[in-house]
Amino acid sequence: MNAKPTNIFTVHSRIDAPARAERNRHKGGVLWLTGLSGAGKSTLAVETERALFETGYHVYVLDGDNLRHGLNSNLGFSHEDRTENIRRVGEVAALFADAGFICVSAFISPYRADRASARTAARESFHEVYVMADVATCERRDPKGLYERARRGEIPDFTGVSAPYEIPESPELTVDTMALDIEKSVQRMLDYVEKNFTLSD
Amino acid sequence: MNAKPTNIFTVHSRIDAPARAERNRHKGGVLWLTGLSGAGKSTLAVETERALFETGYHVYVLDGDNLRHGLNSNLGFSHEDRTENIRRVGEVAALFADAGFICVSAFISPYRADRASARTAARESFHEVYVMADVATCERRDPKGLYERARRGEIPDFTGVSAPYEIPESPELTVDTMALDIEKSVQRMLDYVEKNFTLSD
Repeated sequence: MNAKPTNIFTVHSRIDAPARAERNRHKGGVLWLTGLSGAGKSTLAVETERALFETGYHVYVLDGDNLRHGLNSNLGFSHEDRTENIRRVGEVAALFADAGFICVSAFISPYRADRASARTAARESFHEVYVMADVATCERRDPKGLYERARRGEIPDFTGVSAPYEIPESPELTVDTMALDIEKSVQRMLDYVEKNFTLSD
Repeated sequence: MNAKPTNIFTVHSRIDAPARAERNRHKGGVLWLTGLSGAGKSTLAVETERALFETGYHVYVLDGDNLRHGLNSNLGFSHEDRTENIRRVGEVAALFADAGFICVSAFISPYRADRASARTAARESFHEVYVMADVATCERRDPKGLYERARRGEIPDFTGVSAPYEIPESPELTVDTMALDIEKSVQRMLDYVEKNFTLSD
């Protein structure tokens, strides 16, 4: 009971994260994949999404495919724009986590400071996943031919070639795609989610 | 079968909207609430969210509470920044729709062009909802005291007082909060959702 006059139009508060987790039988959160181009982030994200979806999880991937031409279409490739790019991804991922999703983001995100901002946005629901493969390995795979173009000088500031990649210092999870094939890499993700996102009965 | 060499790391495509709709038993989409300050958008959004959630829908509200201090924290109140604000909301709402959610957004969004951009982002899953109340009514309610401050000249470019509100020309739904109380207003929303988002068996 509230003795003060109240605005009759404010009746309920919004549905909160615990109510959504209870409904979904798992917590929301962000699985933030970081690593070099060619390390396998996008593949790992999409395969993890599929496996989790089929197990009944609520899961969504954020990557260049759905952000570069939409939310981030007005950003270029300057350092400032890359930072803003990652900042926006971090904020959107945090919204998806709040909405109860396991949000798997797949961006190189080479700078520790940018990843730290994304962590701040999602708070304790942020999980950094280092998709580990060294430059030599990624360059050998070079699925999009980007390393070859970067070596020819056609792509300025290419991470791992002409721009730095700051290795995660204490990621919640490391998936070594040099040692693990895609199936085992996905299994690492599933085991992690099972342990960290599922509600205990 | 594909005769060209394929990247073994690209195995599956992402989970698409129809698969999510099938899982959820309803389509995703955007309910874009537009109207004056005090028209009842936020209340209607939150009450609709609660009612839909309790009926089993997957639903999430985007409003100033979760966007102004996060994704849009680097925007001010210039016309250009307001447009960018609405553009980002439109893109994020489209992502939530793609993820299978009914995304209820609650922003004044006074300009037709900005709302048209948001519609473009979400394509056919966009539903404009005009939360209708005239200036006199909103000013009488004035739950946050904003009209009083605007009349005193303390808030520049205040929609309905010193900046225009462009009335929707053909909204998918109009909720007249001068004629309907909150309960009936929410019921209008629920009826609309039931008709337009539920999958037929």
